[in-house]
Amino acid sequence: MAFKIIEDGNITSVPGFAAGSAHCGLKNSGKPDICIIYSPSGSVCSGVFTTNSFRAAPVIIDMESLDNNNNIKAVTVNSGIANACTGGQGMKNGRHMQQITADALGIDRGQVLVASTGIIGKQLPMDKLESGIKASASAMADDGGDEAARAIMTTDLAQKRIAVELTADKGRKVTIGGMAKGSGMIKPDMATMLAFIGTDAKVERDTLDRILKQANKTSFNSISVDGCQSTNDSVFLMANGLSGLNIGEESIYYKEFAEAVTFVMQELAKKIVMDGEGATKFIEISVSGARDDAEAGRAAMTIADSNLFKTAMFGQDLNWGRINAALGASGCGLDPDKVDISVGGRMIVKNGTGLDVDKKAAKELLEPQNIKISIDLRNGNGGWTVWTSDLSFDYIKINALYHN
Amino acid sequence: MAFKIIEDGNITSVPGFAAGSAHCGLKNSGKPDICIIYSPSGSVCSGVFTTNSFRAAPVIIDMESLDNNNNIKAVTVNSGIANACTGGQGMKNGRHMQQITADALGIDRGQVLVASTGIIGKQLPMDKLESGIKASASAMADDGGDEAARAIMTTDLAQKRIAVELTADKGRKVTIGGMAKGSGMIKPDMATMLAFIGTDAKVERDTLDRILKQANKTSFNSISVDGCQSTNDSVFLMANGLSGLNIGEESIYYKEFAEAVTFVMQELAKKIVMDGEGATKFIEISVSGARDDAEAGRAAMTIADSNLFKTAMFGQDLNWGRINAALGASGCGLDPDKVDISVGGRMIVKNGTGLDVDKKAAKELLEPQNIKISIDLRNGNGGWTVWTSDLSFDYIKINALYHN
Repeated sequence: MAFKIIEDGNITSVPGFAAGSAHCGLKNSGKPDICIIYSPSGSVCSGVFTTNSFRAAPVIIDMESLDNNNNIKAVTVNSGIANACTGGQGMKNGRHMQQITADALGIDRGQVLVASTGIIGKQLPMDKLESGIKASASAMADDGGDEAARAIMTTDLAQKRIAVELTADKGRKVTIGGMAKGSGMIKPDMATMLAFIGTDAKVERDTLDRILKQANKTSFNSISVDGCQSTNDSVFLMANGLSGLNIGEESIYYKEFAEAVTFVMQELAKKIVMDGEGATKFIEISVSGARDDAEAGRAAMTIADSNLFKTAMFGQDLNWGRINAALGASGCGLDPDKVDISVGGRMIVKNGTGLDVDKKAAKELLEPQNIKISIDLRNGNGGWTVWTSDLSFDYIKINALYHN
Repeated sequence: MAFKIIEDGNITSVPGFAAGSAHCGLKNSGKPDICIIYSPSGSVCSGVFTTNSFRAAPVIIDMESLDNNNNIKAVTVNSGIANACTGGQGMKNGRHMQQITADALGIDRGQVLVASTGIIGKQLPMDKLESGIKASASAMADDGGDEAARAIMTTDLAQKRIAVELTADKGRKVTIGGMAKGSGMIKPDMATMLAFIGTDAKVERDTLDRILKQANKTSFNSISVDGCQSTNDSVFLMANGLSGLNIGEESIYYKEFAEAVTFVMQELAKKIVMDGEGATKFIEISVSGARDDAEAGRAAMTIADSNLFKTAMFGQDLNWGRINAALGASGCGLDPDKVDISVGGRMIVKNGTGLDVDKKAAKELLEPQNIKISIDLRNGNGGWTVWTSDLSFDYIKINALYHN
């Protein structure tokens, strides 16, 4: 069962998923700022959430809902205001957001998930939100996925969506489609802001949980834009079963289905990095030869989070000493005299010390927008890959003037 | 035994310490780039060093020297090249740097410490270094401390030095003087680049080690400019005993002496933060009410290292949600509904949610160059203070174009 990417695919490419969006005034720009993803036949849903101690109200509400309910029909998402650090009033508003959606669609409150993204500490203006939810419900359409991906954007410059189609025997098809938002406050431990993935495969909750958790490790938890963890991050995987194709652990399609979900999530995660605030570079950092995968991941992430490394990438400066310094600070087991580093396939550090690279060659290595850095610690069999962006003047501009 | 600050004091304010500096061509600017701190009568010396796995050659050499020798007479410091990640040749060059100094001063090689700061991965040009060491030895002067503090600068904008004088009974005096360098790649676990403190107190090695280690925790290990740990960080505390005043653990002056050393180191550490690359703000973050001091320190440091917090400070934006998000990501035990935050003495967050602060008041709170942020977790008796700077356009400029 190979899968193929659906051109311009999104969450409503999946049979049985619709979406509706609206502008209700949470954003000053006049752009869409609210949407509902709707699965009228109901979905088994699995979620992973931020590990931040300050969990936003919608995160707390959704964790409860997923504990108590295994039949999710709608997810309402607003951008502009995060409903985080909003106390009891924020919880009340989140539950009210569920109820308004349930009423608009004629379903139960427990079948509605809610998600918010935007500024922390502000209360949701419930009158605006109510009209937005009603307008989104009215705008519900089988091809509303692209507009929904736009409605959840904040500082994002591009909408992030993808869909893939798997073909099983007898021509049976399974679709997986998703969308995500995020470009700042992006750092592992579920700091990916928001992602919604739907599929028409038939999957039990336990299996779905396992697939999501595993795929999340190598996708959203393997990216970092600015090393800052958010209060609202949530990833949802919804399976409405309409394809009739059963994906149990014993299914001959389990592995391929899980791989396709991982692919969809990695593509969305990479789109977040590419759209990282102020980013001019998309950087893949692969560490191999670590004592184990976890150490490789930690080493790769310490480099990805180093401001000095990121500014060097922005400046197209082959200052590999900053890679060494970050590696050495990561706590990863290594022998400084055995570390090899390659950029774009060319070895620049051998046994921990630099090889001669002339100015012209160095420039050629770092001029491309996509940069691959490979590090071999020659200290074991552990490996991991993370994706990150550079740190530019525009990151400062975007974040110093966020409120203004 | 109270202490007073010596006006324009530096390491040569301490009786028995001299310094000589020179320009030998390691820096293109023509500014001094090498110096020797000289204590002809010999000093008991204690050192703390970077915990980075990629320790620079001078760090490895000094750790050996301090293990084998308890009578240090000179420290030779160069700026411009870090002699880090330079392999066997770097170690050879470091030892040669010791030997040239020993020959120039007529002392033993084991009595010489060496320290380097600057770009990683380049070999020291030994011919230039040799002439620089000889010139520094010739320029040796009892009042050379101010110029030496200038010779160790790299991207630093100002030299960092201080001296204090303690008066014991019968009018006996003890002096403590020091200098430091650093403005980028500044982050705890000994990532403060270089600091040298001298005193004429008489202190045994064990006691000196204890005093330095303790003072280091609340000074150089409590600052962060950019969260990046360096390969060269070293702090040395040298006691030449010339005052004749004995500081043993049972001494009635022990506590006050240790406090004065801590004060000197904190002042030097703060000067590093004030001179942080591109910094426009000096920010003190105090966390109280944590379960223990270590958790308070981790919470304060996670805020200090948050790019989103730092850019908000640069933009004078009272975006306290970013403080909450960093606190929540720190792993520090807290109840989100009990967290209070004050800026400049004014409470802005009570019980985890924001209080009303109008635009004018918010501006007044963040306009000053010095900003104090106090966070009470109301969850225990642990407390810690860290110092940090903001993240500005100039940080990017300095670090993206470092090689150019």
